[in-house]
Parts: sequence; structure tokens; C-alpha cells
Amino acid sequence: MLGKIALEEAFALPRFHEKTKWWAGMFATDTDKHTAEINDVGPIRLDFAERHGVGLQILSYTAPGVQDIWDAKDAQALAVEINDYIAEKVKAHPDRFAAFATLSMHDPQEAAAELRRCVTQHGFLGALVNDTQRAGVDGDDMIFYDNEKWDVFWATCTELDVPLYLHPRNPTGTIYEKLWADRKWLIGPPLSFAHGVSLHVLGMVTNGVFDRNPKLQVILGHLGEHIPFDMWRINHWFEDRKKVLGLGETCKRTIREYFAENLWITTSGHFSTTTLHFCMAEVGADRILFSIDYPFETFGDACEWFDSAEMSNTDRLKIGRENAKKLFKLGAYKDSTA
Amino acid sequence: MLGKIALEEAFALPRFHEKTKWWAGMFATDTDKHTAEINDVGPIRLDFAERHGVGLQILSYTAPGVQDIWDAKDAQALAVEINDYIAEKVKAHPDRFAAFATLSMHDPQEAAAELRRCVTQHGFLGALVNDTQRAGVDGDDMIFYDNEKWDVFWATCTELDVPLYLHPRNPTGTIYEKLWADRKWLIGPPLSFAHGVSLHVLGMVTNGVFDRNPKLQVILGHLGEHIPFDMWRINHWFEDRKKVLGLGETCKRTIREYFAENLWITTSGHFSTTTLHFCMAEVGADRILFSIDYPFETFGDACEWFDSAEMSNTDRLKIGRENAKKLFKLGAYKDSTA
Amino acid sequence: MLGKIALEEAFALPRFHEKTKWWAGMFATDTDKHTAEINDVGPIRLDFAERHGVGLQILSYTAPGVQDIWDAKDAQALAVEINDYIAEKVKAHPDRFAAFATLSMHDPQEAAAELRRCVTQHGFLGALVNDTQRAGVDGDDMIFYDNEKWDVFWATCTELDVPLYLHPRNPTGTIYEKLWADRKWLIGPPLSFAHGVSLHVLGMVTNGVFDRNPKLQVILGHLGEHIPFDMWRINHWFEDRKKVLGLGETCKRTIREYFAENLWITTSGHFSTTTLHFCMAEVGADRILFSIDYPFETFGDACEWFDSAEMSNTDRLKIGRENAKKLFKLGAYKDSTA
Amino acid sequence: MLGKIALEEAFALPRFHEKTKWWAGMFATDTDKHTAEINDVGPIRLDFAERHGVGLQILSYTAPGVQDIWDAKDAQALAVEINDYIAEKVKAHPDRFAAFATLSMHDPQEAAAELRRCVTQHGFLGALVNDTQRAGVDGDDMIFYDNEKWDVFWATCTELDVPLYLHPRNPTGTIYEKLWADRKWLIGPPLSFAHGVSLHVLGMVTNGVFDRNPKLQVILGHLGEHIPFDMWRINHWFEDRKKVLGLGETCKRTIREYFAENLWITTSGHFSTTTLHFCMAEVGADRILFSIDYPFETFGDACEWFDSAEMSNTDRLKIGRENAKKLFKLGAYKDSTA
Repeated sequence: MLGKIALEEAFALPRFHEKTKWWAGMFATDTDKHTAEINDVGPIRLDFAERHGVGLQILSYTAPGVQDIWDAKDAQALAVEINDYIAEKVKAHPDRFAAFATLSMHDPQEAAAELRRCVTQHGFLGALVNDTQRAGVDGDDMIFYDNEKWDVFWATCTELDVPLYLHPRNPTGTIYEKLWADRKWLIGPPLSFAHGVSLHVLGMVTNGVFDRNPKLQVILGHLGEHIPFDMWRINHWFEDRKKVLGLGETCKRTIREYFAENLWITTSGHFSTTTLHFCMAEVGADRILFSIDYPFETFGDACEWFDSAEMSNTDRLKIGRENAKKLFKLGAYKDSTA
Repeated sequence: MLGKIALEEAFALPRFHEKTKWWAGMFATDTDKHTAEINDVGPIRLDFAERHGVGLQILSYTAPGVQDIWDAKDAQALAVEINDYIAEKVKAHPDRFAAFATLSMHDPQEAAAELRRCVTQHGFLGALVNDTQRAGVDGDDMIFYDNEKWDVFWATCTELDVPLYLHPRNPTGTIYEKLWADRKWLIGPPLSFAHGVSLHVLGMVTNGVFDRNPKLQVILGHLGEHIPFDMWRINHWFEDRKKVLGLGETCKRTIREYFAENLWITTSGHFSTTTLHFCMAEVGADRILFSIDYPFETFGDACEWFDSAEMSNTDRLKIGRENAKKLFKLGAYKDSTA
Repeated sequence: MLGKIALEEAFALPRFHEKTKWWAGMFATDTDKHTAEINDVGPIRLDFAERHGVGLQILSYTAPGVQDIWDAKDAQALAVEINDYIAEKVKAHPDRFAAFATLSMHDPQEAAAELRRCVTQHGFLGALVNDTQRAGVDGDDMIFYDNEKWDVFWATCTELDVPLYLHPRNPTGTIYEKLWADRKWLIGPPLSFAHGVSLHVLGMVTNGVFDRNPKLQVILGHLGEHIPFDMWRINHWFEDRKKVLGLGETCKRTIREYFAENLWITTSGHFSTTTLHFCMAEVGADRILFSIDYPFETFGDACEWFDSAEMSNTDRLKIGRENAKKLFKLGAYKDSTA
Repeated sequence: MLGKIALEEAFALPRFHEKTKWWAGMFATDTDKHTAEINDVGPIRLDFAERHGVGLQILSYTAPGVQDIWDAKDAQALAVEINDYIAEKVKAHPDRFAAFATLSMHDPQEAAAELRRCVTQHGFLGALVNDTQRAGVDGDDMIFYDNEKWDVFWATCTELDVPLYLHPRNPTGTIYEKLWADRKWLIGPPLSFAHGVSLHVLGMVTNGVFDRNPKLQVILGHLGEHIPFDMWRINHWFEDRKKVLGLGETCKRTIREYFAENLWITTSGHFSTTTLHFCMAEVGADRILFSIDYPFETFGDACEWFDSAEMSNTDRLKIGRENAKKLFKLGAYKDSTA
């Protein structure tokens, strides 16, 4: 289909060229190509989009990005730099590019303020955060946003009426040493990403973030980071824990209700029709959004799969574009390729 | 259906009665009932089985059990006690009860020897281990079995031709403090169980355990601890990492091949027809085994679900009994209820 | 869920009491009970609805009804009688009952006029027609509505902005003798119903009815009378026949487009979660409507199934009620049970 | 995968070249190419097979073939000619080609005798029959095989231990005029094929053919000619009709049991992963067989779909080859391409 909207699409700062290339060596067959693709916010992406029927790309800074910087000041400075950089780039192609804010998550107030600045001044469509914020003297701590201290930030999201994309990042610190160092092949997409985000977002659910911020919208990539698979099991145990224990004090709704009212999942990096159909049954097509995960995945793989995956026309339009238009209030969106 | 075989069914030692009851307070509505059920290896279970068409129950010691004991000597002593205890109990009803060995996993040779003793002397059908072995002076370490040091143990499993059930346990030590303490509602079935086992078994896959022990059979509960959901994504990234990185040196087959040749999943605690159908597509009905997870789940919930879940008669028989008969060489098994 | 809307719910005229009871003998275990249920448009139905969370029942005359009457005058007279009868009944409980018009389908103009009368004077929500109209001197002919002669009728449907429910009826005449008499157990729900309606509605698709009447809305019961199962195959061959033959002249869109824009399916008499999930993938939850097929099916079977079938909350609401509210413009609908 | 076995693969007699080409005009874009393909039993097919990993093709005479010939003598003569012709052809490539017998179905004894001759003298693997036999003075009658008169034929099938493939043919005679002439686009794969075969085989089920011949094996193409879609509904009504009516007298088992013990479905002409997954849930992978429907479908379409369709390795092997090896006792089958 034409005019698809994609929303887990990464860019990097060109000034980190060498570091980006080194990083690419951990997964890319052609590190120069990858570096060129992730640094480009123009012709390369636009050409891929044109060829594969993507109308709008919502760009975000590549992981782990600012969430990897344990010095709070450095983190904030880099976030601002990134936001101002991408704001400029996006302005050049306002019909084809949009952006998510990059945020330092050391301090809720600061994060809220930068989000506000990005949304009100730059027209960003929300924020994308790479899981926990690395912190502490040695970078060994992890800041989670699933506690009351962060309500001021979540309140700002709902006040501004923009969603937050909870993207993964690699494990660091003690956790890395204890669990992942000896099974390094599982770091990233094969496993650690889903572990990190599923813990974080279900922490938000059980710790009451969505009850205290009932309009908050959070987006999960990779078809939901494993959670839909256990929808029955999670629901079964949550409801049980409400009966005999105190879970019901903070988590008043069922897991299915949070998925119907607060959570969204995208197809980024998970081009499986079987899993998509499963999610259509367990999550519902109204809360699923097309995405690619470029340049870690290719436009070709994502779009050829999605365009030909068996589903109703109605759901293809919804997942491919219409749901995103609703979520991001893109009523005026007219895809130039459609 | 009659004559079902169930294989994630827990018992406890009656001498830990008080501790068992205290533990039950964390999830059971009726702690006395739960304690009575888990301590019983006789009339209560047999009555449930009779009423719900379960022919054979393969019993195992409740989690975390011996894997929670960080003193190696104490762990071994308890394992032996448990094995001798349940061997006696099983003998009283050889057509209705069987057992998995309980093992201290501090030392591969010791674990292998105890497994051999249980299989050859007691007629046990394999072993059930509760994820990593807690170890270290303060119990803060975790022993994984996904490295070469454990090949002697895995070789014993294949030599004896018995499977190992990799069951979860709760997080402990630093990991607990870093990740789970502040989101306690996710400990156990809602999330931490799947995190623990998926990491461990995919560590075995990528670190070459199944390549070095190609006949090894490992069973996962809860319909596969999330892994089938990401079958496409894991396959995609594993094959990619073989191209540009060295994953192929230890992990020569595809994830789908390990699931076809070395892994089994059970329905324990996950009574969702949608998820079961998904697993039938991604894993295949030949590698799925019925199980309950009694007494954490009820015979009624598990069996009423399974007996009426939509599937072909052939697959119901396979999942309900025939696959287990093949895996455990129960050719002579004649269900008294069938 | 509460406040479900059901739309394949049959009533009979009490004056045909004996005939109804005789007919019931062909399928009902308790013919008196069935006769009482189908003749009731009051307390029995309202009580079932109350107990099972059905807010609104859209009633229609039982099959084969007027479509079985091959004398055109008799057919029209009976249709008018039925419509006036049910209009009175519905008025007594306007928040719980609504009606589909019963139509003699001997003549397009006459059918259109009666539909108009029912919609404008009685407030009916559309019409339900039992497949082909029996006709001819001996009742051996069948009138199909899939040709241009019937455009005046279809134009009236779209002008009035009401859907037509294409319900099955039993085979009659030569067809009956040639195909069904010797395999009588297949008559009705097991097979002949789906054969009749799938032929008729795909005839409408291929003969251009929906292209000439692009806003026409047609509802199919029983999860689509087999058609969704072959969505891929039908699409494959239709598109092929457009290339080398002339199908494209009358049938300009794809089968998936007709299902997205003109067709709806209901769950009447098909309480299979597997099939529902399949239809959610192939047809999409936006075009699926809950229904019972009472009193041939029970409120209990339909509602207990639907209320507990695994699906997202969003889709349960849509299928259970919201889609119907859109289709029938029931914006003001406030379910008294919800 | 390599070494696939395909079993709905049509050939024609070269002496009917002109008629074949005329027939091809009704669906083929290139009638010469189609005619060449269907007349070839050598290099064209072997080349396709080589390129697409098909090890063994079980060939059958194209529909409607002998079932279209209403003169009994002519029908028998043609059947014998076809069988002797293909027997010669198959002998030239015994590792790549096998055959189903073509049968005149005017008389059960005659059909049984020819089947016996083909199996015992030519080594054919069973028979493929194109639905009802056209009969009567004007060809307006249809002979069904779902009555006791045909038990002698079915008994021969089971005695010889070979399956019958019940393939569709186009509607003829009164049925054609009454139902299909005015909606010609639905003739064949889009609808009439499934109508014909589903009626015939469910007639066999309800009229007791499988109860009187419990070892009989019947194969259905196109993923089951719609029947799996209504497995729940058919089961529901059959069991109901056993309670209040006499269906249980001839049809003692459930529809699911017939599908587990007597029926097989193939993927011929239905390359939909969604529908295949549905059939894996409702019919089970053990009763599904890969097939193409060449030359009406292409090797490329069928094999590229099947080889990349998401499923477990175990099921791909079973559906692609192992199930067929069991059904046809091809224990010695060694695919030269595998």
C-alpha cells in the first residue's frame, strides 16, 4: 500500500561518524552503508520511501543514545543538540519526515520541559526513550520511570497529548555482567530488548502509572516485546493477585484494558504474519502500527512483507496508516505517494 | 480426553509444612488447602486425576527447591532426600505417578551422578531443574548450565536418554534488587519466570550445548516462555549474526531446527487456545505436551480448557498423551481411565 | 459483555402455530419449547437477553418464510401482514427490539416499495431476505437478485441507507431433488445454507451489483457462509479471470474490497473462536457483527462463547455492539443492561 | 524444501490436443503454453520439479475427463486408454512420476475392477475421480458414490489399501442451468468446485460410507473444499441431529473423527498461509498434504509459497513429504533432489 507511516526509524548525529561505524561492526554486513543510511535524513531515506510506499517517517535518535549517558548534564546537552538538529532536517521535508523528541531521563522535570519544548516549538509528535536511563557514578544504575516520581513527566505527555515510544537499549552495568556477558548473542533483538522493555512497561502497569495517568499513550515496538504472547497468563495471574494480594491498589484495570486504552504495538523488526495475526486476535488491529526499524531492518523487507501479508484491506489501511493518523492527529496528512 | 499425561506437577516435603504454608501466602487464597495439596502424593491428586481424565502425573519438587540453596552440600543432601522420598511415593501407584529427579546443580559431575542414580535405581523419567543454581557465599551468584563445563551433565542426560525440564525460579541476589524488587507483581508467572528460562535456554542454544549434545531433549513450560512469539525475529537475527559475526561457530542450526529436534513446550499454566494455536503453527503439535502446573493451577482449569479447546482429534491425542509417550518411552502405558 | 446487539433472531406468526410446531420436529428436541420461543416477542426473549447481556435484538421472520411462497400475491400479502405484526410488537419495547422488513421478492419494484414503507413508516433497520425467491407455477423456479433487473431494489436500499441481510433457505424444486434429497442430513446449517447464500452473494459480486450500487451493504450470517475460507483462492481466480476473460467488466474491485466496503458477516450459529480469529485476519474485526440465530441456537451458547472468547477488549466491543451501532446508525443507543 | 511430493497434478491425452487448447481458452493467458504443459509427461514437468524441489509427482487425468462422458462404454474405454498411456509414461521415470487411476464411475463393479487392474498391474497409487459421474441419455444425470450400491467399490479401495482423491468437476445439466449459467464466473475454482465436492464427501460421511468402510481414505483438494471452515458448525449440527433425528444410524462418529481417520486435505490451488494455519488447528498437520494443481497453478507459486510459509520444520516436512510417504507407503522413497 502507498502512504504508509513508519515510526521506529533511527538517525544518528553525523559528528559521531566514527563511533557509529564502529557500532555498526557489531551487526552490519556493510558498515559504510549502514553509517551512510543512519546519518542520512534526506535522499537515501526519501528514495527508499518512494520505492516502498512510505509516506511519512517519524524519526528518532538511535539507541542507546542519550539513555546510555550517565552524566546528567552531558545527557541533557546531547538531547537538546539532537532535537535541534533533527528539527531542522525535518523542516526541509515536512510532508515526509516528522520526529520524536530525544530526552535525557535523569530528571522528570527536565525531561518534561524538553518534551514540551520539542512539541510546542518544533512540532514533534511525541518522544522516543530507550528504556531505562543509565545513571550513577559508574553508569551502573538504571532509572526506571514506573514510579510516582515520574508522574510529572507522564502528566506532561498527556497534557501535550503525545505518546511515548518505549524503545529498548542494551543491558549495561551489573545486569550485563550477571546475565548477558556470557550469552552475548542474545543481546539486542534476539532477547535482551524484549526483556528490558517488557519489564519496564509492565512495571508501569502494575505500579499504577496508567491509573494515575489514564490518558497516557505508550508505544512498544517489535509487536509488543513478547507481552501479547502471555496475555492470557498475565491476565490470569494479575487478576489472581488482586484477589489475595494488593495488586488491585495500584493496578485497577485488566491487562487487556491497558492494551485497549493505553498501549500500542508496532511491527518494527518483526515481519511475521503469524505473529501479526496472533496480535490481531490478542491486541486488536486498532492498536497495531506499521513500522520498519530502519536502518537495522530494510524498507524492502518490511514493506514487501506488509504489503503482501494476508489481512483485510481495512486492517491493512489501519495498521499501515489510519491508526497512526488517529494517534498523532494527522488529519491533514495527505500522502504524496498515495 | 481420558488418559492425559501431565508433567509439571509439583510436590513438597511434608517436613517443610510451615515454610510451605508461609510461601503459599504469597499467591494462594486458601493456604491450608494449597499446603495440603502440594504435600499430598496420594488421594487428593488421584481424585483430581480421576475426575479430569489425567492418567499419569510426572511429579517434581516445587520451585525454587534445591536451586535456592547456595550451600552445595546442603543442596545435594536435600536433593537426595527428595528423590528417595518421592521414589517411595511413586512406587505405591506406578501406573498413576512417575517422577523427575531433583538435582543440586552446583557441580556437573555430582548432578549427573544423582540423575543416573534416580533413573537407573528409581526409574525416574528425567530431571526437572529450577533455572540457575543459586550459589556463592551470600547466595548472590547464579550458575548457568549453558557452557562447556556442563557438557558432562548433558552427556549423561543423552546417555540415559532422558529429558530435562527447565523450570523457572524466582529472581534472587543482585538481579532481584536491580530489576524486580520495585516491580514485585511481575515476579513469577507474570514475567520473571519467562525472562529467566528464555535467557537460559537460548543461552544453551547459542553457546552450543545442543550442537555438542545433539540428542539432548529439554522441556519448557508455559508454552515456551515467550520464545515462540519471536520465532521469526530470533531466526532473522541469529541467521544474520552468523553471516557477519561468529554465532555460527557454536550454533550451527537454525532456531526452528532446535525447536524441531531438541526442545519441547508444555501447556502448564497457559490455558489459552489462541496461544496454543499460534504454537501449533510456529512450533508444531508434535513438540507440545499437555501439563497443568498443579497445585498452582487447578486440574479443573487445565483439563476443562484442554478437553474443549478447538483442535483436531489427532493433535488433542498427541498433545494430551501420545507425544509424552514417545518422549518418555511409555509404550506400555495403558491409562486406567481411558 | 453487556449491551450486545444481535441481528439474526427469528420470530414466527402465532397463527401458524401448528405448522411451526411440525417444522420444529425436524430439528428441535422440545418442539413445544421451540414453538413458544419463536412465537414470543416479549417476556421469553427479554428474559434471555437480560440474563445474557443482549441489549438490542433485531428481529426477522423465520426462514424460509415469504421466500417459500411461489404465488406472488400471497407472498406480498404475507409480507405485509408480518411487517405490520412485528412493527406493533417492537413498539412495545423500542429500546430492546428492532426489526428487519420481510419482503416478497417476486418483483423488484414491489419489494422496494414495501422496504420503503417499513423503513419510513415502521422505523425498520433494513430487510432480511431468505436467499432466492421461490417462484414458477410449481414453485420450482428460483429468483436471484444478482442481475440488473434488481438494481431498482438495491438502489432503494442505498437510498434508504439500510442493509440487507441475505439469510439462507432450504433447497427446493429440481435442485432439491437432484442434489439434496439423497443426502438430507446436509440440508440447512450443515451445508445447503452456505451453498445457497455463497452462490447468491458471489453472484451479486461478479454480476456487478456492488459496482452499480457501491454503497450497498449486505450482511451474511454464519461467519460468511464459507467465503472467507477461500478469500485467497477466490481473489486469485477472480484477478486471473480479469486478465484473460471479461470478469473485470462487471466486477471492478477485488473480493477483499467488496468485503471491506459492502459486506458484513455475523457470528450467528457459528460459535467457534478459531473460525472467528480466522475471519478477523481475513475479513477484519470492523466488519464482523455478533448474532445468535435464536431460537435455533440458544442465548446461552452464543453469549457465553462470545463473552469469554479470547480477543482484545476493543474488538469484543466492536463485534458485540459498536459495529452494529455504526451500520444501523444507532448513535443514541443506550443499552439498558450496560 | 527438497523432495516434496505433489498429488493433484493433471495431464491430458495428446490426441485431444485441439480440445485441450480450446478448453484452455477459458482460463489460460497462453493457451499454447498450457496445452504443451498439460500434454507433457517428461522434460517440462521434470524441469519445473527440479527447479522447485518436487521429488515425486502423482499424476492424474485432467478434469472433468471421464466423469464428463455419459455413455458408459465410451467412458470405460477412455479410462482404460488413459491408464495404459500414463502407465507407460510413468515407467520411464519411476522415481519422479507416479499415477492415480482414471475410472469410469458408471458402474461400481467395473470401476473397482479397473482400479484393481491399475494398482496391481501398473502400480498406481490410488484413483482420482472428478466428483459425480455424468450419466443419463442426455448427460443430465449425476451418479453419486455415497450410497450402499457403491460399497463394493469402496471395499476394493480398502482391500487394495489405496486412497481415492475426490477432485471437482464443472456443473452440468439441470444444475448448471438452474444455478450456474447466470453466474458463470463462479464456475470452477472460485465456487462450484467446492460446492460439488463438499456435498459429495459430506454425503459419504452422513450416508455411512466411512462407517461401512472404516479404513477408506479419501483426499480432498484446495485445503478441504470449505469444510474445515465450518468444522465447529457441522459438528454442532450433526451431533444435534443424532440426538433428535436418525443421523446416528448411518453416521456414528463425529465429523472430527472422520477428518482424523478417513480424510486428507491438500494445498492444491490454495496457497494461503492463513488458511493453512487454520487447517492446522482444525484438521491437524498430520492430515495435510502438499500439492500444486499444475498446470492450472504454477510450480513457482505453489513451491515458493510453501517453502517460505511460516510453520515448524516438523510440519513442513510432514505436509511436504512425510505424510504422503505414510499414506502411499513410500517407505523406500528417496528423493533424488533431497
